Order: sequence, then C-alpha cells, then structure tokens
Amino acid sequence: MFKQNGYKTISIDRVENAQADQNIIVVQDTLKEQGEHVLEALASCESVPAVINVAGGWCGGNCASDDFIANVDLALRQSVWTSAIAASVAAKKLASGGLFILPGAAPVTNGGTSGMIAYGASKAAVHHMNLSISGENGGLAEGNTSLCLAPVVLDTPMNRKFMSKADFSTWTPLSFVAEKLLQWTEDSTSRPKTGSVIKMVTKSGETEIILC
Amino acid sequence: MFKQNGYKTISIDRVENAQADQNIIVVQDTLKEQGEHVLEALASCESVPAVINVAGGWCGGNCASDDFIANVDLALRQSVWTSAIAASVAAKKLASGGLFILPGAAPVTNGGTSGMIAYGASKAAVHHMNLSISGENGGLAEGNTSLCLAPVVLDTPMNRKFMSKADFSTWTPLSFVAEKLLQWTEDSTSRPKTGSVIKMVTKSGETEIILC
Repeated sequence: MFKQNGYKTISIDRVENAQADQNIIVVQDTLKEQGEHVLEALASCESVPAVINVAGGWCGGNCASDDFIANVDLALRQSVWTSAIAASVAAKKLASGGLFILPGAAPVTNGGTSGMIAYGASKAAVHHMNLSISGENGGLAEGNTSLCLAPVVLDTPMNRKFMSKADFSTWTPLSFVAEKLLQWTEDSTSRPKTGSVIKMVTKSGETEIILC
Repeated sequence: MFKQNGYKTISIDRVENAQADQNIIVVQDTLKEQGEHVLEALASCESVPAVINVAGGWCGGNCASDDFIANVDLALRQSVWTSAIAASVAAKKLASGGLFILPGAAPVTNGGTSGMIAYGASKAAVHHMNLSISGENGGLAEGNTSLCLAPVVLDTPMNRKFMSKADFSTWTPLSFVAEKLLQWTEDSTSRPKTGSVIKMVTKSGETEIILC
C-alpha cells in the first residue's frame, strides 16, 4: 500500500521482505544488541513520516503451563522488545507531524486474559508504553502521534492456517489496516487522538474502529 | 516478620540473604535459564503458604533517552522476569488457600508514565499478569489469592540514599508491608479480593490501603 503510493519502505524483521526497499535483518539474541544493530543500520537514514511496528506472534496458556516461562520470554521478545526498539527509532527519526504505531491487542483492554497470560501481559506493557510515549515529554517530537493498534484477529495466511475453521468474516483484512495506516500517515487531521488504543472489530466483513 | 512468627523462609535473589533459611541465588542471564534454575532448586520443596515477589528496581527516562532500550531490558528483568518465575513457582508450590504477591507500582494505575516509560510498561505487564492469574483458570489452585502490591515509595535504605531530601513521612514503612503480608498469609478472610492492585498511600506516617 505504501509502496504503491510512492513511499520508500524499510523493513526491520528477522527475515528479509522482498518487497521492501531496504531490509534490516535482526538476528541478535539480546534486546540491547538488537537495538544497537537497528539504530546503527539507520544512522544515515533521514527523517521518516511513519514508524510502524506490526510485529505479531501469539502464545496461549496460564501460569501452570509447563511452557509459561518460555512463553513470557517469547511474548516479551515479540511485542515489548520490538516496541522498545521502534520507540527509540521513532524518537530519533520521526519527522515533525509523523505517525508512530505500536502493536496492541483488543482482549487486553477488557481485563485479564487467563488463557493467554504471557501474551496479555506483554500487550499490556505495549499499551502502557503507547500511553506514556503520547504524553507530554514522552520523547517524540512535537506534533507526532502515537497509536496502538488493537485488532481482534487479523486475516493473515498464518491465522487461516492455524484457525482454518473460524468465521473469516469476523477477521480484519490486512488491506483495511494498510489503508488506515496510509491515510493517517498522509493526513494528520484524520488520525485518532495520540495515545489512543484503536480497537478494530470486524463483523460480516465490515470493520469498525472503536477508540479506547 | 515471617521468621519471628515461626516460618521457614526461602530467599530467591541475585545475592544471598543471610536471614533466610534457604537461599536460591539466581545469576543466569536468560529468563529461561533463571526459571529452570529456580524450579530445579525447589523441586523437593513441599507446598508453601505464600509466594511473595517483592523484586525492586526503578529506572527513569522517556523513549528519547539514550539508555531507553537498556532501561526496558533492565525493567523487564527486574519486574516481569521475576514475576513470571514467581507465578510458575506459585502454580506448582502454593498450598490450598495460599497467597501470591506480585510487585506493582501505584503511578501505573493512573495512566501513562512519560518520565519513566520502561519502568511503567514493565509494571503494567505485572498488573495485567496479576489480573490474568486471579481469573478463573489462571493456573493457581482453588482458593489461592493473587494480589499486586502498588506502593508509591517504600521507605528503604536505597531510597533514603538516593532521595535523601524527600519527605520520609510520605513513604510507606517496610514494617507496614511485612505486617500486612503476614496477616494475609495467616488469615485468608482478611485478604483483599483476588486480582486486586493494592495501592499503599502514606501521609504523615499513616498508611492507607486503596484497592484498584
């Protein structure tokens, strides 16, 4: 969506994205090493209109699960580490009036998530980070907007593979998310208020945005 | 306080606690290794009446701070890693009707914490973990209580050292916390509702408990 509209895209991920104009591959095993690698790779990069973290991942289980500690480790890496690095990049590279996006989760806004404790706790950290960053002196430049996307289920190939019998008409299409991100990047007046958690609820193929 | 009342105490920490009956020293560098080490050291331990995580630590700064990523790393280790390990221990070792305590923070309950983003996000994860664990099927045994302590400032030697000009009469004495923990351990009817975040607000030396 961004590329089709003339943007140069930089992908920061564990694997290469063939569609991106530039790839920064992150394979380091510690948060500090990952952060240093990304910031170094972006050192000569000029300011950007948007820094978007859509790092995914999910894991289930409660605190009695044998893999509970491993799941906390995984969920922190997927959601909190990537958000910390993205926030550092945003503080250094986001142009005036730029857009910053963090990856939240809708269920976390409704209280505890006993069936997926590690995932929920990590997403709660991301929601709180978004709230702090959007505050006065949160570290972003004046006029920047920080938002947290909180989809219920995104209609991705991986989700179709693992939940093949679900009702896909209640899943949020990636094209909807991409269109919104492009619109918010280009038209700052169209954006939800900085600090918002943006719940995306899809019913019968129609997606509604609920701010919380 | 617990020792004076006849309890055998096991300290799980990075350094030895000379007052504890048993010490489990945790020096491993990854969450998984730390978790394995602690669970292994407790393998022959019988069920316990309370698992109490009072791991401390604080770090300031917003996302523009040069040490932001390092601070996220530190805050996750201090608050979230220890809570994940404690939760796993509680699921395996807490006796019926036992007490589980996690280390939260009062400022996080009031919204964003722009001046201490890493710390706030980590504590938000702990609060959410407490909420999930206290839910049905959170992983604890029937009748267990999971609570999150959320002091404003504790009156510790370290805090006195680093904030030597503060008004100590607004700090919560450790003896107050210890007395409450003992009371809640011994008398389950005296406990706040499972899942509560227990704000401790001290004014003129008097501490009030506010549930949120």
